[in-house]
Amino acid sequence: MIVREHIFNIMRKSAKLFGFMPIDYPSLESMDLFRTKSGEELLSQTYSFIDRGKREITMIPEATPSTVRLLGAKKNIPKPVKWYCIPKLWRYEEPQSGRTREHSQFNADIFGDASPVADAEIIGLACETLNGLGLKGSYEVRINHRQIMEKILDSLGTKNITEGLNIIDRFRKESREKMIENLSGNLSSTDNAERLMDFISGKVQASKADERIREFFPNIPFEQFSENMNETISALEAWDYNDIVYDPATVRGLTYYTGIVFEGFDKEGKYRSIFGGGRYDKLSSIITGQELAAVGFGMGDAVLENLLREKNLWKAEAARNRYIIITIAEEAQKFSLKLAGNLRARGIEAATSNTHKNLSNSLRSATANWYTHAIIIGKKEMESGKVTVRNLSTGEQKETDTSGIN
Amino acid sequence: MIVREHIFNIMRKSAKLFGFMPIDYPSLESMDLFRTKSGEELLSQTYSFIDRGKREITMIPEATPSTVRLLGAKKNIPKPVKWYCIPKLWRYEEPQSGRTREHSQFNADIFGDASPVADAEIIGLACETLNGLGLKGSYEVRINHRQIMEKILDSLGTKNITEGLNIIDRFRKESREKMIENLSGNLSSTDNAERLMDFISGKVQASKADERIREFFPNIPFEQFSENMNETISALEAWDYNDIVYDPATVRGLTYYTGIVFEGFDKEGKYRSIFGGGRYDKLSSIITGQELAAVGFGMGDAVLENLLREKNLWKAEAARNRYIIITIAEEAQKFSLKLAGNLRARGIEAATSNTHKNLSNSLRSATANWYTHAIIIGKKEMESGKVTVRNLSTGEQKETDTSGIN
Repeated sequence: MIVREHIFNIMRKSAKLFGFMPIDYPSLESMDLFRTKSGEELLSQTYSFIDRGKREITMIPEATPSTVRLLGAKKNIPKPVKWYCIPKLWRYEEPQSGRTREHSQFNADIFGDASPVADAEIIGLACETLNGLGLKGSYEVRINHRQIMEKILDSLGTKNITEGLNIIDRFRKESREKMIENLSGNLSSTDNAERLMDFISGKVQASKADERIREFFPNIPFEQFSENMNETISALEAWDYNDIVYDPATVRGLTYYTGIVFEGFDKEGKYRSIFGGGRYDKLSSIITGQELAAVGFGMGDAVLENLLREKNLWKAEAARNRYIIITIAEEAQKFSLKLAGNLRARGIEAATSNTHKNLSNSLRSATANWYTHAIIIGKKEMESGKVTVRNLSTGEQKETDTSGIN
Repeated sequence: MIVREHIFNIMRKSAKLFGFMPIDYPSLESMDLFRTKSGEELLSQTYSFIDRGKREITMIPEATPSTVRLLGAKKNIPKPVKWYCIPKLWRYEEPQSGRTREHSQFNADIFGDASPVADAEIIGLACETLNGLGLKGSYEVRINHRQIMEKILDSLGTKNITEGLNIIDRFRKESREKMIENLSGNLSSTDNAERLMDFISGKVQASKADERIREFFPNIPFEQFSENMNETISALEAWDYNDIVYDPATVRGLTYYTGIVFEGFDKEGKYRSIFGGGRYDKLSSIITGQELAAVGFGMGDAVLENLLREKNLWKAEAARNRYIIITIAEEAQKFSLKLAGNLRARGIEAATSNTHKNLSNSLRSATANWYTHAIIIGKKEMESGKVTVRNLSTGEQKETDTSGIN
């Protein structure tokens, strides 16, 4: 939990920096809320049950429906609003690395702002969070635009856009042969399938998106969407978030996205996506009956925790000074208690060791419990007012006035 | 959530100050874990169900069983350990003020330390948290010792100690007549019932506990327990936590307490208890088969939130500077974006307003969304590099260099 608490702190701090306000919603929602949005299939992978009041309820498997429902219940808040939340979510699935049955997810959304800068503030917040965790340079954000992909699929004679997007979504999981086979079934020819496959196989620097699309599909009028995407990209550049690539294979499986879509990955490609999201201007009307521009992301804690552990990026957080006061002479007990109160009043983390085991046992227990320093108090220390501070990782000891502890 | 986030922050900060480490556990546990400890009655007030793997599970209604189970699973951690957690808990009950079906609860426990100073560190942490929230002077901690009460009940001829404690536990909910009637049924005479009733009707300053007990029960050998309690009290005094009273009516309903018990209340008596806990050295052996000294408390967020709202103690937290940048000339957009990035890089909370509504609409929306200042950017500002900062609560405006914003 030291790692996770550190992650949550940086999430909250970054959200505030971008002007997002905290919200929360219940862990239990009516099953209908998810039926509306995602259908029965999602519900078959949830912890759902009938409660004592005979309601069909589910432990929330995702955050967005609750957020939108909440917004519908608070119709009068002047828009735009920027909200964040770090709820626990539950899915009944086989647990895998980076995907557990229970996890916490950082969610941030902007409602009532259709501008590309809102898209940039959402992606920027995700980047700021990763940067704050020390991951700058280790991740890339892959972005794309749903409507560009729909235009392309259209021009290639798709039989069903949703199905086409779902096939593209499996790009990194299927062989080229399998992809071509699936795309051929969706598009009007195998030639088209191959062209699309070649197109989605190449990521480029985000500012080169137009070039790349025009190279493959010179006759498609995609500019109104790419202009929008380019504005988002330049805002991100202005804020110094630079690891953004245009990736036509990023389409996001869920059907409700209507504009920009994006996912964050570690550059080495070892892990699942770190975060993902996009613009979803239609979802609100399904849930609340009122259309409302919306863009947001979700960022789970499990992949981040793995990344931070691998890169040892949490140790600094754990290594802040934590003192334990070990009293080796019964008569010094009062002195030790006073010292503990004193240090805490100065904002210094200090605990007392009270079990009167021998010193070496106390030191071993202190080290195992993440204390960084032991303050050892005997009769001599009590009388002189100078205490012995032992660094628990190096074993080094020094004498100091209590005012010298920090 | 501004209030609640503030509460959670102070809880985490206080826990760290006392050397507690964060833990977490699943929201779902086997029903057996609670059957063992609390019996079927508690389970009838939970969200319990059979999952897709045919397991009898429950959404955790309290934190301690999970904490103890976790400790049993990590047997090798050198003791003592100091753990805290702020889980969500669920109970299927009629919601009431200060008692909702879902709530968050701050839990802190020390395991493997039977000393009275450990008791003091637990109570001290509860006090430190309330002080950190600005409640110093507004609350009192009522403490008592289970074994003193058991000695007293014994000496008065109790037929069943648990039942006797449960009757005392209802002291503040029943009339004197009803109490005497119930106690008479439990004790050997109505005289004894009246004596006990008189005893539990008086709270005294914590350091006067011995005196009070001796006055009523001169022949009971309670000193070994009160010495223990007095040591706890003097540690609390040494740390300057002074609103501690000895209250013989505080016994805590749950049967598993074995030593000191305590509850925190607002002094005006308007609310339910703010926190409660005690020493429970036997619970571990029930759950893990291994006996282990333990003391801890639980502090819900609902009563605290009510208290802080009533006393307006959360406004300072919400009133930290939050800037929104409103661009009133299209050509200044780039300048505004740069400024946003710039402020954030300096750790200043800054959002951009992108909806290009008229200025007064933007200001209204900004105020409703808790921004404290608007930075208004037009052509003039872009050219001069000086910006207009408007205080959204006073309406005051001033011109400043962007470096003057903080």
